Amino acid sequence: MSSSSTAGQVIRCRAAVAWEAGKPLVMEEVEVAPPQALEVRLKILFTSLCHTDVYFWEAKGQTPLFPRIFGHEAGGIVESVGEGVTDLKPGDHVLPVFTGECKECRHCKSEESNMCDLLRINTDRGVMLNDGKSRFSINGQPIYHFVGTSTFSEYTVVHVGCVAKINPAAPLDKVCVLSCGISTGLGATLNVAKPKKGSTVAVFGLGAVGLAAAEGARISGASRIIGIDLNAKRFDEAKKFGVTEFVNPKDHDKPVQEVLAEMTDGGVDRSIECTGSINAMISAFECVHDGWGVAVLVGVPNKDDAFKTHPMNFLNERTIKGTFFGNYKPRSDLPSVVEKYMNKELELEKFITHEVSFSEINKAFEYMLRGDGLRCIIRMDA
Amino acid sequence: MSSSSTAGQVIRCRAAVAWEAGKPLVMEEVEVAPPQALEVRLKILFTSLCHTDVYFWEAKGQTPLFPRIFGHEAGGIVESVGEGVTDLKPGDHVLPVFTGECKECRHCKSEESNMCDLLRINTDRGVMLNDGKSRFSINGQPIYHFVGTSTFSEYTVVHVGCVAKINPAAPLDKVCVLSCGISTGLGATLNVAKPKKGSTVAVFGLGAVGLAAAEGARISGASRIIGIDLNAKRFDEAKKFGVTEFVNPKDHDKPVQEVLAEMTDGGVDRSIECTGSINAMISAFECVHDGWGVAVLVGVPNKDDAFKTHPMNFLNERTIKGTFFGNYKPRSDLPSVVEKYMNKELELEKFITHEVSFSEINKAFEYMLRGDGLRCIIRMDA
Ligand SMILES: NC(=O)c1ccc[n+]([C@@H]2O[C@H](COP(=O)([O-])OP(=O)(O)OC[C@H]3O[C@@H](n4cnc5c(N)ncnc54)[C@H](O)[C@@H]3O)[C@@H](O)[C@H]2O)c1
Ligand SMILES: NC(=O)c1ccc[n+]([C@@H]2O[C@H](COP(=O)([O-])OP(=O)(O)OC[C@H]3O[C@@H](n4cnc5c(N)ncnc54)[C@H](O)[C@@H]3O)[C@@H](O)[C@H]2O)c1
Ligand SMILES: [Zn+2]
Ligand SMILES: [Zn+2]
Ligand SMILES: [Zn+2]
Ligand SMILES: [Zn+2]
Repeated sequence: MSSSSTAGQVIRCRAAVAWEAGKPLVMEEVEVAPPQALEVRLKILFTSLCHTDVYFWEAKGQTPLFPRIFGHEAGGIVESVGEGVTDLKPGDHVLPVFTGECKECRHCKSEESNMCDLLRINTDRGVMLNDGKSRFSINGQPIYHFVGTSTFSEYTVVHVGCVAKINPAAPLDKVCVLSCGISTGLGATLNVAKPKKGSTVAVFGLGAVGLAAAEGARISGASRIIGIDLNAKRFDEAKKFGVTEFVNPKDHDKPVQEVLAEMTDGGVDRSIECTGSINAMISAFECVHDGWGVAVLVGVPNKDDAFKTHPMNFLNERTIKGTFFGNYKPRSDLPSVVEKYMNKELELEKFITHEVSFSEINKAFEYMLRGDGLRCIIRMDA
Repeated sequence: MSSSSTAGQVIRCRAAVAWEAGKPLVMEEVEVAPPQALEVRLKILFTSLCHTDVYFWEAKGQTPLFPRIFGHEAGGIVESVGEGVTDLKPGDHVLPVFTGECKECRHCKSEESNMCDLLRINTDRGVMLNDGKSRFSINGQPIYHFVGTSTFSEYTVVHVGCVAKINPAAPLDKVCVLSCGISTGLGATLNVAKPKKGSTVAVFGLGAVGLAAAEGARISGASRIIGIDLNAKRFDEAKKFGVTEFVNPKDHDKPVQEVLAEMTDGGVDRSIECTGSINAMISAFECVHDGWGVAVLVGVPNKDDAFKTHPMNFLNERTIKGTFFGNYKPRSDLPSVVEKYMNKELELEKFITHEVSFSEINKAFEYMLRGDGLRCIIRMDA
């Protein structure tokens, strides 16, 4: 089925294995089995670290699943394909994605949803769908997958529905960040909030996701982009992203939604919540203007959180909606997001604040844990 | 300014005056002053009774404002116009509306909002905007207006921004019901929920507003229209409105949103809440399908109600929005709703279950208080 010399063979390569929750990853030689039906094996060239990796690596609260290979933001090249794979061939440049698109379920067939019934993100599953087994092993011991991608390995096996084929001219060390957080924030603005030119947009949370939402507002031609964060350190970086005004809720006695209403003669046109904090979600809703305001929730809340508001806030013609992966369908839509970068419509360089070699991957964890920078690119060849 | 013989004169005519909260209206001879700047005086031909009249007449909870002339669903003819009125002239057929459109504020200029800053509904004000006075009096005693319309009078004075000029061929005894509840429910579906052809729509509350929402679903080509009401008596009437299935939450041990999810393989495509009950609002949101479901709130909640849901319900790509008067702009949009009736796209006859003469207006209150029928037309000429 494939012409590459490794096709059909087990590949031995380096992977950064998490043996235990919260302990530094260990560089190991792993065996990567060939792809089965509807699977592809990828050579990963660049990967980056996202909070979700750190969150499941820390495994506070969730059922721990170890040993495991994390990683879900990456760019690579198809090494070989399994039975029934017709859309991809060895050599294709791709982005693996933590959520998929089977193209056959009700969600995939709906224009509005990207929440594929078959391939929707599953953080508890550590195996492949096809046979319920892992494709990674060390001396016969299976190593678990993470969200179907496990990109902290020189080679990985991914369901074909979780692979976006992109323009081979796109630099993978840049566009790899489109696999998760950046697309999530960007799509929340471009696909869901859809601000009109000249409008006022509030972004709650100025991490990578929030700044990508701000980048979406800039691309949409928003005239005011108001950044809200509890951490004033975030404001400096945010200026590069076209954020024009800053509000730290800690600086005010009244609720931040009231501060924003005063700043904007009644409320913002659009707000995008990228914090995961329930308070920010409520504020993000209540700060939009009556008549036309739309709030979009992106942050992942805690299990016991409750969203609470007075129903008159809806009756006054406000809208609230949530989004998952910026409403992008991975296979259908990501290639065009890559094109936006190629056309210089979208800037990605400013998100990339660090770079390390694969052997130094634990440094990327340190940067993130101390809130240093936005994205750290991990070069697999070094 | 006008060629009618009564123009510029005080008109003496019959009006049904509410002297006290909850007491039968009394037919009185009132004096109706001429319209001032940007006002028009209307001869009302038909009016109908809506819950909002009954609610403010009962005046439980709100500050009572009496004596007052209620009434806000009506059809009539322009008798004379005040200074600066250029859009209307004597003889025009019109619907007065409880909320207005100044055409100059941010809301009127927005494509999305109908919540005019100047003329938005105000239930506490009993006087005209121009001079803060009433145009109605009995022997010099002012009688308060209600929501700027006061249609339980043979003549009334209304701000020009609260008057929709309609096709003079339209029968006013039918289209008068478009002044409030019917347009509210219809627009909630057609302008806000916007169900696609073939979709499944849930309607919570099968009063006039809910049945108008169902009529909107029928017009939109919904394949399933599920009616939810606590009152099983409503189900018979609802069959005439294309409601195909019924759920009484009282018949089930589990929350009605779970019952609906089971009936529809995961949730309805659109839901429209027309009850005013906070429980129904929460159910209406939680019963929509993830990925694409949209819930629209129409009912007016209580002061102390809190809307509460788990934020993951948003993240799974559900939308909730509220609407006021079905998002119709009274002057710009109502004429085309009348045309829908004229084209036989929209049925109104089925909403009209009773008819009384003006002198019997208290009967209309009795019908509504015992939940008998939907709309009672009051003929002013009898
Ligand atoms: N829906 C999706 O598909 C998806 C994908 C990726 C990430 N996410 C979620 O998006 C959120 C943001 O991700 P990130 O990587 O940018 O995180 P981050 O931690 O880098 O940034 C979050 C920012 O929010 C700020 N913050 C926290 N509480 C706040 C409050 N009450 N008011 C104002 N600011 C507050 C923090 O100070 C921080 O700067 C997370 O919840 C993450 O889980 C969602
Ligand atoms: N937003 C607007 O512009 C606007 C305009 C007019 C009316 N309204 C509101 O719309 C709502 C409906 O008006 P209507 O005239 O049709 O009222 P109605 O009283 O005739 O009908 C309401 C129906 O809801 C049912 N109901 C109550 N609680 C329920 C629950 N928990 N679950 C299921 N059904 C329930 C009742 O049994 C009743 O049949 C009211 O709240 C009214 O104030 C809003
Ligand atoms: Zn699918
Ligand atoms: Zn991520
Ligand atoms: Zn206006
Ligand atoms: Zn009404």
